[in-house]
Amino acid sequence: MLQSDFMRTGGVTNGLQLWAVTHLGPLWRFLQARPGLRSAANRLIIDGMVYKMKTRPDRLSTMSPYPSWPSLTNRTFSDRHLPPDPAFQLRLPPADRATALFERSDSQERWSHKSTLLFPLFAQWFTDGFLRTDATNPLKNTSTHDIDLSELYGQTEDVTRVLRSMTGGRLKSQVIDGGEYPPYYFDDEGNVKPEFAKLPITLPAGDRKAVGVQEVGDLANRKLFALGIPRGNIHYGFTMMSTLFLREHNRLADAIAAEHSSWDDERIFQTARDTMIVLLLKVVVEDYINHITPYYFKLFVDPGFAGRERWYRQNWMSIEFNMLYRWHSLVPSRVRVGGQDRDTGSVLWDNNVVVSHPLGALFEEASRQPSTEIGLLNTPTFLLDIERRTIDMGRDAALASYNDYRQACGYPRMQSFADVSSRAAVRAALASCYRSVNDIELYVGLFAEDVRPNAALPTLMGTMVGVDAFSQALTNPLLADGIFGERTFSAAGWQAIGATARLQDILDRNTRNESRQPLATLTQLTWSRV
Amino acid sequence: MLQSDFMRTGGVTNGLQLWAVTHLGPLWRFLQARPGLRSAANRLIIDGMVYKMKTRPDRLSTMSPYPSWPSLTNRTFSDRHLPPDPAFQLRLPPADRATALFERSDSQERWSHKSTLLFPLFAQWFTDGFLRTDATNPLKNTSTHDIDLSELYGQTEDVTRVLRSMTGGRLKSQVIDGGEYPPYYFDDEGNVKPEFAKLPITLPAGDRKAVGVQEVGDLANRKLFALGIPRGNIHYGFTMMSTLFLREHNRLADAIAAEHSSWDDERIFQTARDTMIVLLLKVVVEDYINHITPYYFKLFVDPGFAGRERWYRQNWMSIEFNMLYRWHSLVPSRVRVGGQDRDTGSVLWDNNVVVSHPLGALFEEASRQPSTEIGLLNTPTFLLDIERRTIDMGRDAALASYNDYRQACGYPRMQSFADVSSRAAVRAALASCYRSVNDIELYVGLFAEDVRPNAALPTLMGTMVGVDAFSQALTNPLLADGIFGERTFSAAGWQAIGATARLQDILDRNTRNESRQPLATLTQLTWSRV
Repeated sequence: MLQSDFMRTGGVTNGLQLWAVTHLGPLWRFLQARPGLRSAANRLIIDGMVYKMKTRPDRLSTMSPYPSWPSLTNRTFSDRHLPPDPAFQLRLPPADRATALFERSDSQERWSHKSTLLFPLFAQWFTDGFLRTDATNPLKNTSTHDIDLSELYGQTEDVTRVLRSMTGGRLKSQVIDGGEYPPYYFDDEGNVKPEFAKLPITLPAGDRKAVGVQEVGDLANRKLFALGIPRGNIHYGFTMMSTLFLREHNRLADAIAAEHSSWDDERIFQTARDTMIVLLLKVVVEDYINHITPYYFKLFVDPGFAGRERWYRQNWMSIEFNMLYRWHSLVPSRVRVGGQDRDTGSVLWDNNVVVSHPLGALFEEASRQPSTEIGLLNTPTFLLDIERRTIDMGRDAALASYNDYRQACGYPRMQSFADVSSRAAVRAALASCYRSVNDIELYVGLFAEDVRPNAALPTLMGTMVGVDAFSQALTNPLLADGIFGERTFSAAGWQAIGATARLQDILDRNTRNESRQPLATLTQLTWSRV
Repeated sequence: MLQSDFMRTGGVTNGLQLWAVTHLGPLWRFLQARPGLRSAANRLIIDGMVYKMKTRPDRLSTMSPYPSWPSLTNRTFSDRHLPPDPAFQLRLPPADRATALFERSDSQERWSHKSTLLFPLFAQWFTDGFLRTDATNPLKNTSTHDIDLSELYGQTEDVTRVLRSMTGGRLKSQVIDGGEYPPYYFDDEGNVKPEFAKLPITLPAGDRKAVGVQEVGDLANRKLFALGIPRGNIHYGFTMMSTLFLREHNRLADAIAAEHSSWDDERIFQTARDTMIVLLLKVVVEDYINHITPYYFKLFVDPGFAGRERWYRQNWMSIEFNMLYRWHSLVPSRVRVGGQDRDTGSVLWDNNVVVSHPLGALFEEASRQPSTEIGLLNTPTFLLDIERRTIDMGRDAALASYNDYRQACGYPRMQSFADVSSRAAVRAALASCYRSVNDIELYVGLFAEDVRPNAALPTLMGTMVGVDAFSQALTNPLLADGIFGERTFSAAGWQAIGATARLQDILDRNTRNESRQPLATLTQLTWSRV
């Protein structure tokens, strides 16, 4: 989309803002090189992203259409940015027809020009830690509402204890071919190991169907790991991320223990965990978000300013955030895994490939193939059931229209299907489904818009990600004044924090035994700005 | 204490601030009369009170002496303002000797010049809603960390449901002699009513001893009410407050129902409850805190500004707040209740006096007798066990010294016992217990200082109350932008909020059937500024 097009559909102010951050490269590089100016620019851009919507506390949750003491405090229901709009629901087409807008035909598979396969692998692993729909009620959630690395540590201390070795601050692990991995969940006879009996592993109906098994026990020959969250073994990309972070935890624990001979297991463990959470936050901002945005300026974790902003509020994951993060269209129909081209649906719930290849090689392989592009008409068949459930979820919550959300984010309402997308197929599909552009529901509209030039996401989605992501990542108590510092993380932890900006940094430290230094990049090596 | 004395022990800046707000009466009255200036002055004074200490998130809780993810997030442990100081504990005298500093001898009972008995009755009822020590571990708590009127509604929805009539948005109640009261917990045969079987009533060991009974069942003839918190029947003052607020809830529910014929029980109930929480917050700031402070300017609930302050943070009750609010010395050894002079220890766990006198008459009676004065050497005998437990609690938490807390609040360290108190008996008592002024523990120091002229509390205590009270009351989500307004509370609720600044206002609305309009005042009618 040309800048002038964006100014027409995005509004003049938004257009000028976007123009400034996606042009003037020399200026941004000048700012980037000067610490004081760099912090000021960082604050200005992040504030600009977060203040696109009203800050928490929001008036409503998914509990009730009016505020009540339970609805304002019970976070097992989800926050919501806009009130329910029951009248709007009456104008919606059947959910099957909306679902069909997502379907990819093999001949139409669209590839991303910017993102590698590592991008969706990291995105899912990262967000499954805190965007957690309650299986019994899609309006509820099972989130801790914190970015707390529950993928690795579990959501409760009971689970954490099961995963800890309780010596030297380490997590339980095993060594296979010289590489460290999480321990197996099943023993050699295919029984759940008694030590993991209380570890939650669930296999939702959709996964059972996709994998073709009846219950968790049927997966005994798939080398499942003992991990922190129930679906932690969902696919090889998920477990390779957890393996990397487990290695880094144990590496840090050993380094902290070496420095502090008087510290007990508990203190070493907690200090390593504190450090790991900050490493994740750094990678999220400095690698992942910088990949997503089209900006010249590289954002960074600068803990100082957040505490002075009025978006610094208790976290509460919103139902819109939960829905908009379902980036199924990033997933190619076939992927190269462990040197083989495979149907993506066939890599679910199977760690054999993870334990039979060097970890670095798997990261490199995912870094050297593209993801597909986010958008309508590009979801692989095996994920269409989930698209359907997401559309139902938006309707159960009686979400306001796509255009209402655009307006709430400060964008002009779209006037026609042609405003929404530059692609004829998308326009036609929308027109076949909705009577007017005002009838488009949020989930469809988010994916219908064009991906912004040089970005990884469409406009409204990128905007709404920024609102909820920064206002719930930079509020982490570990980044707060008086907490963020060497005294909290130990010298070894503080050194690791200073030395980490990208997944590559963590991978380098944990694949030293491999024959060559592997690549870890979310951005294709061949990508260059247009 | 003269102003010049305060400037010596309190520091020049603090002294000038205090001088300004306790003098210049015409200036403050001028500001008070002009809405814009009034808001600005209100913000300035409240910010000045809250920013005396570092704002949340604090580095430590009572969980561990270093920050960990659990310690930063698990609010069943208490927040703490200063780190533990194990070395300081070694300098402390036996706890019995510190406890003896609190003991009142009958000949020494000191009376307040400012506060009525209604002041401690309201203070205890108000704070027991959110300052809740875990009986199994004094370093833990059972608080929701919100000012949520749990005294009336319970801490969980299970309890709330038991207390609701489930029709017309009302709480269950009974009428006795034309007055409305909470329902009885026991039936006429002395058995717990089945509907209240799940309601938590606990009788701690200290209460059992004081009342001379073995178990809750022994209280069957004392007309206990079904109330929201386990110790809700602790004494007549507590249940008379709950009765008043129950009447107001049901009055509001009826008014809201009359306005909104289409609303169901749930919506009426929640709207009345939302309103009631705000009424409590208004009374706390505009009646209670204005009683405590010596200022000319009358603070008020002005929801707008709090959201822009960096003290607007998720609530977390601190162990220091829990301890400093134990104002046992405000309780006279004998009180006039229902027209009789009684030992205060004899009014515990007995509602007979509440149901046999008009509610307004009880409020008036408590408004026409003084409380005793807060401070050392003035705790009635029957409360000394609790003083001892509080001293133990401070030591279990390894709290820093009194002088360290003064310093953390921006006050100079006291240099001698004579600096602490102008009273010879207090100086001598301190000197007999501690080797130096630097050895005084926080709980003792808080009560050793002189009550400020024209105030209800000593200096450090008043300061620390201000820090935690405002930063956890004005963060209530019901006061937030977009929530605080008629749309949330209904016309009837909004009208009640506008018409409420003092307990007197609520009492007037709920004692119309009594023969004369009763008095409700925290400040003695004869009090005048010195």
